[in-house]
Amino acid sequence: MSDEIPTLDGDGLDEAVAGLAGWQVDGDAISKKYVFGDFCQAFAFMTRCALEAERRGHHPDWRNVYKTVFVTLSTHEAGGVTSRDLELAQAFDRAASG
Amino acid sequence: MSDEIPTLDGDGLDEAVAGLAGWQVDGDAISKKYVFGDFCQAFAFMTRCALEAERRGHHPDWRNVYKTVFVTLSTHEAGGVTSRDLELAQAFDRAASG
Repeated sequence: MSDEIPTLDGDGLDEAVAGLAGWQVDGDAISKKYVFGDFCQAFAFMTRCALEAERRGHHPDWRNVYKTVFVTLSTHEAGGVTSRDLELAQAFDRAASG
Repeated sequence: MSDEIPTLDGDGLDEAVAGLAGWQVDGDAISKKYVFGDFCQAFAFMTRCALEAERRGHHPDWRNVYKTVFVTLSTHEAGGVTSRDLELAQAFDRAASG
């Protein structure tokens, strides 16, 4: 299924990521560091993201250190960044703001 | 408060960690890799751990990649591993088993 999703690279990837506040290209992935007020807020964010990820069948590689959450997204089966990552990034940003 | 908690090192730390299945000394910390059946199980574990951590006021440095959770524990204020880490490690192991 994921084989059908093309990866983004070069200018296309740069342009797509430029439209996502705080996200950057990180090797074959995109990443963002979210900082919240405390652990509770950080984990509440992660819980919302976990439900989004599970619903989409597309999951993050993420690390939490107290109030900080480092998120890395890539489409493993496709070997790079795809539209699924960009959409999940947008969903995570929405989760962070609400 | 945490200043009063002595760090464990050398033989004392090795001995304490030897009593914790799957945990190892990792620099100035202790760490363990938990592998579950899928993302839902991994995140359910993290949710139980988050509540334990918050209740204790002592939080992990942890990374989740789909069904795997890498946990690192140390007492930052004390500059190493203390009894608070050993107790949290035991609580996480209990969370993992049920």
